Amino acid sequence: MGINEFAGQVKEASIKLAAMDEDQKNRALAQIARALVERREEIIRANQDDLARSEKENLAEPLLKRLKFDEAKINDVVDGINSLIELEEPVGKTLLATELDEGLELYKTTCPIGVIGVIFESRPDALVQISTLCLKSGNGVLLKGGSEAMSTNRILADVIIRATEEAGIPRGWLKLMETRAEVSEMLKLDEYIDLIIPRGSNEFVRYIMDNSRIPVMGHADGICHCYVDEEFDLDMAVKIVVDAKTQYVAVCNATETLLVHEKAAERFLPVLKEAMDKKQVELTGCPRTRVVIQVAEATEKDWQTEYLDYKLSVKVVDDLDEAITHINKYGSGHTDSIITGNEEKAARFMALVDSGNVFWNCSTRFSDGFRYGLGAEVGISTSKIHARGPVGLEGLVIYKYKLIGSGQTVAEYASREKTFKHKKLDKTFPL
Amino acid sequence: MGINEFAGQVKEASIKLAAMDEDQKNRALAQIARALVERREEIIRANQDDLARSEKENLAEPLLKRLKFDEAKINDVVDGINSLIELEEPVGKTLLATELDEGLELYKTTCPIGVIGVIFESRPDALVQISTLCLKSGNGVLLKGGSEAMSTNRILADVIIRATEEAGIPRGWLKLMETRAEVSEMLKLDEYIDLIIPRGSNEFVRYIMDNSRIPVMGHADGICHCYVDEEFDLDMAVKIVVDAKTQYVAVCNATETLLVHEKAAERFLPVLKEAMDKKQVELTGCPRTRVVIQVAEATEKDWQTEYLDYKLSVKVVDDLDEAITHINKYGSGHTDSIITGNEEKAARFMALVDSGNVFWNCSTRFSDGFRYGLGAEVGISTSKIHARGPVGLEGLVIYKYKLIGSGQTVAEYASREKTFKHKKLDKTFPL
Repeated sequence: MGINEFAGQVKEASIKLAAMDEDQKNRALAQIARALVERREEIIRANQDDLARSEKENLAEPLLKRLKFDEAKINDVVDGINSLIELEEPVGKTLLATELDEGLELYKTTCPIGVIGVIFESRPDALVQISTLCLKSGNGVLLKGGSEAMSTNRILADVIIRATEEAGIPRGWLKLMETRAEVSEMLKLDEYIDLIIPRGSNEFVRYIMDNSRIPVMGHADGICHCYVDEEFDLDMAVKIVVDAKTQYVAVCNATETLLVHEKAAERFLPVLKEAMDKKQVELTGCPRTRVVIQVAEATEKDWQTEYLDYKLSVKVVDDLDEAITHINKYGSGHTDSIITGNEEKAARFMALVDSGNVFWNCSTRFSDGFRYGLGAEVGISTSKIHARGPVGLEGLVIYKYKLIGSGQTVAEYASREKTFKHKKLDKTFPL
Repeated sequence: MGINEFAGQVKEASIKLAAMDEDQKNRALAQIARALVERREEIIRANQDDLARSEKENLAEPLLKRLKFDEAKINDVVDGINSLIELEEPVGKTLLATELDEGLELYKTTCPIGVIGVIFESRPDALVQISTLCLKSGNGVLLKGGSEAMSTNRILADVIIRATEEAGIPRGWLKLMETRAEVSEMLKLDEYIDLIIPRGSNEFVRYIMDNSRIPVMGHADGICHCYVDEEFDLDMAVKIVVDAKTQYVAVCNATETLLVHEKAAERFLPVLKEAMDKKQVELTGCPRTRVVIQVAEATEKDWQTEYLDYKLSVKVVDDLDEAITHINKYGSGHTDSIITGNEEKAARFMALVDSGNVFWNCSTRFSDGFRYGLGAEVGISTSKIHARGPVGLEGLVIYKYKLIGSGQTVAEYASREKTFKHKKLDKTFPL
């Protein structure tokens, strides 16, 4: 069967899945969690095959690490599923209810988006996470994992498909693609796929974004900034910038560039450098930075680079507005933080920095669905429409307008025989 | 100056515009309304030039009609601006407030999307409508109108640019493109343009959708359906279907295909045909339809056609599920209505039909921002993400997460020295 037919089947199943109620979906999630535990030995064996093969093929160490799916990882994803079950049902919420006229009631209610295309590299846990998020939100899934994880993905998909079929979820709601050629096919299926969620390296995500007309939810780069204003508390500023840079360097919300007000540079930079030296962070700086501290010269390329490493570029700016302009030019719209004692400047920064997450006096590392208390994280989006910043289950739903009438026609209103009331109703969709 | 630089200027201005408050934007809107009235003679003269030239060039009659921008049209757009001023400010609303921990508060607040690309044919009123909607929602605008309306568009853009500059709106927030080559350039500017709103014929909108990676808000086809179930009230069904088809045939929410339950066909179709004959609607039907009433044969193509005319295709179906399947296959996800006395069937229809607007016992013609009471209509979207159905001002905003801290680092939470509270706050963003 070709990927087109596969996708058509997922679409068909997704329509039925959209009408499943909370209990049915939660029962299916519980069934997946049980099956993962029951079949854990089989899963681990398949993963060991993938690991052995990938080692032989000289897969890079970080990728091997991400590929590993052991008992601990299984427990993690099972925990994740159990918390997902506890979350509020995202489908069928009434967002708005209006009495257009007597016996003519309009409801805006949440519904699944339809079919989600998920393309991911290495990490088999992504397969379980995103599939269960899609199930909870009533979406069909077309999955494509990396070839290095082929055996693990195959068995995980099998576990999920069987468990959900047993639990009465429409057959065909999830399909696993296996060949690389299918990815490029998938990117063209805008007739069937409503949204693509890519999980992987920057280059990988950018490739997906550049090669599909289907909307993509995610982020390529995470070029995040801290800006230390002239009115700053030295201890706080050092503490925040060190955390933002070093608490975990390999993630998208780690800070890559530090901007410093020219009046703060002399007092702040030497202390920061000492702290960064201790963490073995390599600094590069603009000419004005290099007047104050001894660091290598930063080039234009540094401002555009997501190091994901113990590296930080530093630039001294004239004022807040230069900092904002720099961030809007070089940043990736992800997360940026201002450190200042001045409320007005904080407000200006938060209004004018065009990023999904704008912070005042705290580390950029806080931008994360779990830290935000969203309960589950679908991903972090730097898109300007639909969903932005850390995205929870609400990013996987859209809405429908449902209008309940009793024989009304537009002609009656066009002729002024009847007029609209547009009265807000305090009730939920009744059917 | 190239379109790239133009777009860069709009982007730059849009950042400042995003921080403008309600009063400033409303003052600018009032200024536009005043200027349109003051300069009405100049506008009408320019429009007469366009009309005369287009007539010579044999522009089709309906296009000439849409091109006309006279005193009445000016009054309409001025009325529109005045109601827009009265609408609730869409920017800066707090959607969510959470205390992550003591002194660490998260706010999710609405903000403009950024830069909207507006591409429209003929109707100069679209220029004023969409520009003012963008202004109210704090978005920059890159406009491209049809060459037939060049003089009218030029003066309208000039009116808006001068009026808003006088009112203190950042210079450069709106730019008018004039050549056709600029459209294809514009469709590539995903670095600057965040969303495209096309206004024009189906073919025109589809061309835009097929030729840009920038998200498009709108709809190409409007293939809407009425389904008459076996449990139906004859008078109501006839009245609704006649309204849905004939109240205004040239619009996207007019019904194009009627589906009839096989058990309803004999009683319903002859009465409907009589009513449709009176309105001079041409019917085509499937073989089972043609057993009951004398109509031409419908082909596969009929189910895929938006007539926008006094034509209706009719199909007899076995049951509700066949109707739903037909709609999901041939419909355009716009508006579909079920006529039935059975609540359960209505619920099933509204859950399973994958359209932005799903109706029970009323005409498809109701799907419209003004009828819905949205106050203003940006357009009707058949997209599955961001905004669906009739879209009001809320479709022109997105949100940002704003986090106010007091020196917090993630390391403190990772080490369990501190733990998150995630307490819902009942307050709005304080800055």
